[in-house]
Amino acid sequence: MGWSEELLAFHEEIAKYNLGPLWDVIHEIITREPVETAVPYLWKWPVIRERVMKSGQLITPERGGERRVVFLENPGLKARGFRAAATQTLYVGIQLLLPGEIAPSHRHSQSAVRFIIEGNGAYTAVDGEKIYMERGDYILTPAWTWHDHGHEGSEPMIWMDGLDSPFVQLINASFFEPHAEKRQPITKPDNYSVKRYGVGMLRPLGDRHHGYPSPLAVYQWTHTWAALQNLKAFDPDPFDGYAVQFINPANGQSADPRIDGVMQLLTPGMHTRAHRHLSSAVYHVVQGSGYTVINGTRFDWEKGDFLALPAWAWHEHVNTGSEDAVLFSITDTPLMELLDLQRVQEWTEADGHQPVKSVFEPLR
Amino acid sequence: MGWSEELLAFHEEIAKYNLGPLWDVIHEIITREPVETAVPYLWKWPVIRERVMKSGQLITPERGGERRVVFLENPGLKARGFRAAATQTLYVGIQLLLPGEIAPSHRHSQSAVRFIIEGNGAYTAVDGEKIYMERGDYILTPAWTWHDHGHEGSEPMIWMDGLDSPFVQLINASFFEPHAEKRQPITKPDNYSVKRYGVGMLRPLGDRHHGYPSPLAVYQWTHTWAALQNLKAFDPDPFDGYAVQFINPANGQSADPRIDGVMQLLTPGMHTRAHRHLSSAVYHVVQGSGYTVINGTRFDWEKGDFLALPAWAWHEHVNTGSEDAVLFSITDTPLMELLDLQRVQEWTEADGHQPVKSVFEPLR
Amino acid sequence: MGWSEELLAFHEEIAKYNLGPLWDVIHEIITREPVETAVPYLWKWPVIRERVMKSGQLITPERGGERRVVFLENPGLKARGFRAAATQTLYVGIQLLLPGEIAPSHRHSQSAVRFIIEGNGAYTAVDGEKIYMERGDYILTPAWTWHDHGHEGSEPMIWMDGLDSPFVQLINASFFEPHAEKRQPITKPDNYSVKRYGVGMLRPLGDRHHGYPSPLAVYQWTHTWAALQNLKAFDPDPFDGYAVQFINPANGQSADPRIDGVMQLLTPGMHTRAHRHLSSAVYHVVQGSGYTVINGTRFDWEKGDFLALPAWAWHEHVNTGSEDAVLFSITDTPLMELLDLQRVQEWTEADGHQPVKSVFEPLR
Amino acid sequence: MGWSEELLAFHEEIAKYNLGPLWDVIHEIITREPVETAVPYLWKWPVIRERVMKSGQLITPERGGERRVVFLENPGLKARGFRAAATQTLYVGIQLLLPGEIAPSHRHSQSAVRFIIEGNGAYTAVDGEKIYMERGDYILTPAWTWHDHGHEGSEPMIWMDGLDSPFVQLINASFFEPHAEKRQPITKPDNYSVKRYGVGMLRPLGDRHHGYPSPLAVYQWTHTWAALQNLKAFDPDPFDGYAVQFINPANGQSADPRIDGVMQLLTPGMHTRAHRHLSSAVYHVVQGSGYTVINGTRFDWEKGDFLALPAWAWHEHVNTGSEDAVLFSITDTPLMELLDLQRVQEWTEADGHQPVKSVFEPLR
Repeated sequence: MGWSEELLAFHEEIAKYNLGPLWDVIHEIITREPVETAVPYLWKWPVIRERVMKSGQLITPERGGERRVVFLENPGLKARGFRAAATQTLYVGIQLLLPGEIAPSHRHSQSAVRFIIEGNGAYTAVDGEKIYMERGDYILTPAWTWHDHGHEGSEPMIWMDGLDSPFVQLINASFFEPHAEKRQPITKPDNYSVKRYGVGMLRPLGDRHHGYPSPLAVYQWTHTWAALQNLKAFDPDPFDGYAVQFINPANGQSADPRIDGVMQLLTPGMHTRAHRHLSSAVYHVVQGSGYTVINGTRFDWEKGDFLALPAWAWHEHVNTGSEDAVLFSITDTPLMELLDLQRVQEWTEADGHQPVKSVFEPLR
Repeated sequence: MGWSEELLAFHEEIAKYNLGPLWDVIHEIITREPVETAVPYLWKWPVIRERVMKSGQLITPERGGERRVVFLENPGLKARGFRAAATQTLYVGIQLLLPGEIAPSHRHSQSAVRFIIEGNGAYTAVDGEKIYMERGDYILTPAWTWHDHGHEGSEPMIWMDGLDSPFVQLINASFFEPHAEKRQPITKPDNYSVKRYGVGMLRPLGDRHHGYPSPLAVYQWTHTWAALQNLKAFDPDPFDGYAVQFINPANGQSADPRIDGVMQLLTPGMHTRAHRHLSSAVYHVVQGSGYTVINGTRFDWEKGDFLALPAWAWHEHVNTGSEDAVLFSITDTPLMELLDLQRVQEWTEADGHQPVKSVFEPLR
Repeated sequence: MGWSEELLAFHEEIAKYNLGPLWDVIHEIITREPVETAVPYLWKWPVIRERVMKSGQLITPERGGERRVVFLENPGLKARGFRAAATQTLYVGIQLLLPGEIAPSHRHSQSAVRFIIEGNGAYTAVDGEKIYMERGDYILTPAWTWHDHGHEGSEPMIWMDGLDSPFVQLINASFFEPHAEKRQPITKPDNYSVKRYGVGMLRPLGDRHHGYPSPLAVYQWTHTWAALQNLKAFDPDPFDGYAVQFINPANGQSADPRIDGVMQLLTPGMHTRAHRHLSSAVYHVVQGSGYTVINGTRFDWEKGDFLALPAWAWHEHVNTGSEDAVLFSITDTPLMELLDLQRVQEWTEADGHQPVKSVFEPLR
Repeated sequence: MGWSEELLAFHEEIAKYNLGPLWDVIHEIITREPVETAVPYLWKWPVIRERVMKSGQLITPERGGERRVVFLENPGLKARGFRAAATQTLYVGIQLLLPGEIAPSHRHSQSAVRFIIEGNGAYTAVDGEKIYMERGDYILTPAWTWHDHGHEGSEPMIWMDGLDSPFVQLINASFFEPHAEKRQPITKPDNYSVKRYGVGMLRPLGDRHHGYPSPLAVYQWTHTWAALQNLKAFDPDPFDGYAVQFINPANGQSADPRIDGVMQLLTPGMHTRAHRHLSSAVYHVVQGSGYTVINGTRFDWEKGDFLALPAWAWHEHVNTGSEDAVLFSITDTPLMELLDLQRVQEWTEADGHQPVKSVFEPLR
């Protein structure tokens, strides 16, 4: 800025009193746009899966601070000393549970959602209900609800955990409590919430005003898949293809009030238009192959890969395969909307497509 | 009251000026409880069906002021000169549409819901969407939406119409408009809303804040039936058995904001406890047989019958058959709740059961 | 309609079974617009006041079914047998309380509001709070709150009561309960709500989410007057001049959830534009003189007069005096808005002014 | 944790792939309680005022990145490299405007509130309205509204700025835009919002559903003072004495949706009970003297001083003077409540009072 010596001396003098000159820092604090902290990044599934499976030989859930998880670490944030964050606000971990194991019961102020990748026979218990996990299911463990995982099957079970732990850490709002018992008492029939609320537009009479948390704790793959297929009767969304989000049937809002879950389908050859939003996201490739262009860099993906989309980054998706590609993602959209901070901008040039300036080389 | 002559003269004198003495009428205006106007009443299906079918020979929808409908008339209200009302606030009609016919397009400030009783191949068009009607479907034509019915099939189609027309008439809030064309233009794919919103707890991304009217216009029987079967994993509601209501997936509230639709299942032998509420209802027997005790009178019902439950009347249900009995009903519960007037009271004596003092003899 | 004999025979036949032909009544039930039931009407204050004062000699509040009130009776509704209604949904009474008298405590499902016309030293007790009434105050006794009136002063006290009793009667939702004691126990400091919530945009910390009923039970004249004066810095509303409504500071909605209170000021010479709305109203002239044109008839008014505006009636106001005219009114707008039935239409011809076809001659 | 060498090697290996072991960091990320980052701290008014006045000689608003402000810097956060934050989420600056100066127009995604400390004749222009600032006024410049300050008077004007800039920076949601012109065009009468909405519980007819931002932009001291005096008719709040918060009269919620403003009065000798909440606060002493105990340390304060209360810190207030003490504060309570993260805990021992273990020595 070129401050005078007199002014610099003033800055120094007031700093002793824990006072500061706004003019010296205003442009760092109130920036024209979000600054790049998290970077776009892609993790290959074979790389992750190998390490996750290996962790099964090295540590147990109980020894591992209650969970056995390998998490995605955004290099841009890690470089700033901010650990265990895939984007500025979102954490993603890949959790392994082996037959017979238990990940003990606890609760925390962070919201968590799960997406099931492999295996069956394991369950998540939440608020007295055992939810059996199947590939493709989306499962909620809302903030401050007791939850534990157990495995009654015979093969390794792998799923994706999504939490708003970076956000909660940033605002210093973490509370955690272990349960007195390893497994919480089960007080409801298995898959209670599916049986009671699984037909989303019907509600047991007398259950009104059941706002938070969502009465429905698991969104099973068959429904999600059906909804995506049904959407094909319509024009796809220009930015997201055929995309659905998981909602709380009691209030029509996001299933988890701070994290959105989204499933999107891209038909072969589909190339969406680019846009950007303040909300960030982490994608997991459920099936198919293609690429996403983020801020001019091309990220090629295949089944199983994970991709971090930072806040306010331009992005567009392409399905290069011959089958439908399906992307699951979590976002912090509800957070940004609750706080009235969300922004969305469309890329208007070249029919909505960014020029591709580089290709990302993932670590393999 | 025994007013003095002086007072009676005063009453007479002020009446000339269109003034009145509150003391003389207060107990008629502000009653301790709702007064009996509508009465409990049961209509036999064969009686109704025969007349409805006969109406098909006597009149067309177009000649019939746009619809061919035989309605239920509550004798208590009819005696007070209040026509075409099944309860103080609810109208129920049974509509017949013959192959090739059209019931022309119009809209009105009254809310309407439909429950499909017989036939197929006919559709309701609402806001540019053709909804094909199947037995057991629950269909919305929200207030002030254009709607018409057409029949592309080969057998008579019969359904139940439920409207809040008595309520709207009481408060003198009726607006009606015929469409310029007999059939409104179709602008959406057939069964649009099922394809787009039929998995209630998933929503197309970008469709947020879609409050009123419900984005879902038809609740198909297969889903309703599945939801009822799922509920059997739980204890039944003591007053209503296994009961679900139709909700708007965009806000978690009643599918129509002034009329509730409820489907309830009573297992063989089930005898619910009695209660009463300010909201009134009209029941239609979807399957099975049994009886309902209303204010001490027993109303036996079989498949197809209709039963009017007035406001604030004690009622309990019994399934006397060997199969599940299923009752569909419409109520004015949302109205009473919006206005903060709803009340519910449980019958506490004799394990929740009223003494049966008489048996209603329906006209056959 | 010219039905055939065969059809007329059918109508007669089905009527025996309490069934009816929709085609025969549809145009009475579902009308193109609200029908005229209530009529526009004006009551002169000297006529009312004389009878109210006389009632003080003839009856006590206690003998008079708990209140001594002369009410306005709309001739159009009275002719239809609908008593004690100023409009289809609104009741207005003029209540007299003499020094030392008590109007005993009760509660009812009807909402009530008061506007103070004459006198001082009397109070309304509501939910444990004594509210001292002064000329111009607007006072709430929300539905189902205990309320009684007492007079500790020395001169007759006269006020206007506004209730939604016609509406509640129409939908048969009346509940009433007398208090075990003549006066409810006082549990709060006098004028509690003014002291605690009287600065509307400030709230005692910790009193959050205090939705219904309004925490503020009285809206004192000095504030109302100040708000009207402040509004003069702006362009007046074209239809209502300088007009404010009373709101619940806890939620920003109508002070009473079913009845709106409105105070409007017309400067000398002001002539508002005509419009109509589904909501009906009853006006009381607080000061000044002028006239209102309703559906082409001119109603001249002076201080103290009452004027009934039926639903969906065109109306415009003129101040013909040399001072500001002030009209207080109650309306059923919140009711119509809650039910999503409200409609508003502007009169577009002749600069917004109706032709005056007749002049109403009030009874004197 | 004592990880084995094999495990440590695994950690190192996966780190190359930007993967991490949850078990190694879980207790840093998901802590049992918020960790201490910000510290309790007190700034003396004479220290601040002297520097602020001196800044008037050293820099102009325009040269100073649009504003001339000395901000409070929490030593705990500064030590972590987090600048210009008084608490984890709140910024407080003391702004000086000299006669004739203009602080140019801009807007940003951060919310800002002001509390006026000294002077008069200056204004804040927000959304086309000039608000003249007087001592004690609370002024809103909601997120993304254009605002500038100008001074038409003759003496220095000093006020406190409160922003949620640390929060917005943490979640990387900053957007900023300078206005094309130094002063935004004025489109409304001076003090528009006071004239139109200044009687909080009355609203101009037709202004319904005016949710965000608050239609009232300034809360004048006279009203605030009156509300505090009125509250004295009641028992004080055990934790906050006589305290009011500023609300949006259009919806009854916090005046700014992310920052609460609170004014509290402690009568002589009053000693409140200790509690803690996740929300943090910055206090400014409006009048009087006393002390606040935070986490066992005593912070003595006098008129003008500023005090930072970190999240989840125990605190209680004492008025040691002979006049009423008045504390103004800003908090991030709405943020924590919107996100459903707020927690409150009462100190139950020793009648609600913490043991005082140390006395804070402020820099003078």
